[in-house]
Amino acid sequence: MPQLRKDPVTGTWVVIAEERARRPSDFNHERVLDNSAATCPFCPGREDQTPREVFALRDHGEANASGWDVRVVPNKFPALSPEGGLDSQHQGIYQSMNGVGVHEVIVDSPDHVQTLADLPEVHVQKVIQTYVARLKTAYENEQCVYAQLFKNDGKEAGASLAHPHTQLVGLPLLPSRIERELSNASAFFSDQGQSVFEMMLNETLEDEQRLVMVNDHFIAFAPFASRFPYEVHLMPRFGASDFSKLDASKWNPLGQILKSVLRRLKVLLNNPPFNFFLHTAPNANALKLDDGVRSAFRWHIEITPRLSMTAGFEWGSGTFINPTPPELTASLLRNLLLD
Amino acid sequence: MPQLRKDPVTGTWVVIAEERARRPSDFNHERVLDNSAATCPFCPGREDQTPREVFALRDHGEANASGWDVRVVPNKFPALSPEGGLDSQHQGIYQSMNGVGVHEVIVDSPDHVQTLADLPEVHVQKVIQTYVARLKTAYENEQCVYAQLFKNDGKEAGASLAHPHTQLVGLPLLPSRIERELSNASAFFSDQGQSVFEMMLNETLEDEQRLVMVNDHFIAFAPFASRFPYEVHLMPRFGASDFSKLDASKWNPLGQILKSVLRRLKVLLNNPPFNFFLHTAPNANALKLDDGVRSAFRWHIEITPRLSMTAGFEWGSGTFINPTPPELTASLLRNLLLD
Repeated sequence: MPQLRKDPVTGTWVVIAEERARRPSDFNHERVLDNSAATCPFCPGREDQTPREVFALRDHGEANASGWDVRVVPNKFPALSPEGGLDSQHQGIYQSMNGVGVHEVIVDSPDHVQTLADLPEVHVQKVIQTYVARLKTAYENEQCVYAQLFKNDGKEAGASLAHPHTQLVGLPLLPSRIERELSNASAFFSDQGQSVFEMMLNETLEDEQRLVMVNDHFIAFAPFASRFPYEVHLMPRFGASDFSKLDASKWNPLGQILKSVLRRLKVLLNNPPFNFFLHTAPNANALKLDDGVRSAFRWHIEITPRLSMTAGFEWGSGTFINPTPPELTASLLRNLLLD
Repeated sequence: MPQLRKDPVTGTWVVIAEERARRPSDFNHERVLDNSAATCPFCPGREDQTPREVFALRDHGEANASGWDVRVVPNKFPALSPEGGLDSQHQGIYQSMNGVGVHEVIVDSPDHVQTLADLPEVHVQKVIQTYVARLKTAYENEQCVYAQLFKNDGKEAGASLAHPHTQLVGLPLLPSRIERELSNASAFFSDQGQSVFEMMLNETLEDEQRLVMVNDHFIAFAPFASRFPYEVHLMPRFGASDFSKLDASKWNPLGQILKSVLRRLKVLLNNPPFNFFLHTAPNANALKLDDGVRSAFRWHIEITPRLSMTAGFEWGSGTFINPTPPELTASLLRNLLLD
């Protein structure tokens, strides 16, 4: 019998189709992205083929030369315009504004092939440091209400370049997904006197069925109402709504768990296309939230392999059919022996 | 300058990337679905290869023999189980229930190749009649709170069989998308004293920029905040929240506009993969809504070609990047000369 489950944070329903319980080998995916290192604009030595860098962690060398470990450049084909006034308008029932905001590419490492799953922990820590730094910089601009950090890895996950990279889009508005998580978490807190994220964390640690990994500061788990096969979320074990305030002592533990989860997914699912994205608090300089909302909410990273189709049923209803129970996801990932 | 627009019904923001203004020829898509008519279980003469029919409009012949015009069968691989109790459970923060509901396949016509864009109007009218009849039947079951009607056409739209068909999934819950549209429409009505759908309709007819087609009873338009390139919505011009109550006099005018819009999309975009889905009121026998909500809401059909990727930015934020302004979509579709 399939089971219907409701996500306690988003209110999204999913059908967990247990009898289909799809094992890793049941999923096929291609992984064709044909840009070679020989012409890759993100590879060292070709820094002149991107817009000029806005940030880099370097071992040596000058800005826009090689020698960097992580490099951040404006997107050459940005979704938003970097400059201009918002000119917010209401016309009848319609609301619009100019598409002003930042769109940055974070090149994860000089290596054209190695991903966060392959790179050494000490390097992944630098990527985390860069994420924090860029979000912090985005939030120094009061026009930026929310910055969406995300990764598209593999063609089926929307990547157009193979060289591993992450993106940041700073928006002059609060996106609907974040607005919903904030307001639902806040309503839950008013109702229950506790953070839904805190309760989810405690339940996952006690029950262990959906636990993937844990270290002193972070937890990785397969959510109760996972929308996608092999979906994994990462969350701090301490109260924290704003990722841009993550202090330096946590970069390594987060890098460690992120790398390990991505490594496990890569091995288990034979290098699947995937997205990950951060859900964090909006810019406190742009949008005042009361302290209650901030204590109710907790930042988290959602990792979603792209193994199944999203079609008319899902787009129409906002309800998802997931053939892989999260308990299976968690046990396979948890028990995987890595080299 | 890209423009940010907010959908007045759903609250979803989109980036209309005007300078990219993608013309039909800018989109590539494959259309590979390799099941041939020679082995198709939906073709006439192979009625024994599907579960037994639950409904058919026939010219001649007995149930489960050929002679039908439109045929409805239970899905052979249903997402939900047709029988059983719901056994709704709350465990801590988690809510779940048994996945009980109907999952039907509506075979649009005996023809393996012709779609609703190609079939004669008189046939498309029969398909509409079938949609109404199956939704009505689904809503006779008090356990069915919402029935999602949808079409996946083409591999990239999630279809696994090429023979044109539509699906209906009856759910024991109110999906989040519908819940949101109902509550937003209701809040809008309380605030403005008018239906947001009615205002959208009037604005579209007056302004004409986003108008695709209109007849005496229905309108087709490209929504102000279209999420996808070449997205088109169909809506009645009269107040109506519940599609299952659509009376027989409207089947032909709806079939006519649906066929014409699908025909235009097919010609303009070279037979694109697409989804469409109905948003209608939940089952009045299962979920009492007050009359205010019913007057605030209007059923509609959303047609979404699958030409662009949904990636980390969209999944993370719920904000969409659309390279084709709806005004361009509407003018190209409106001005297309059909044979």
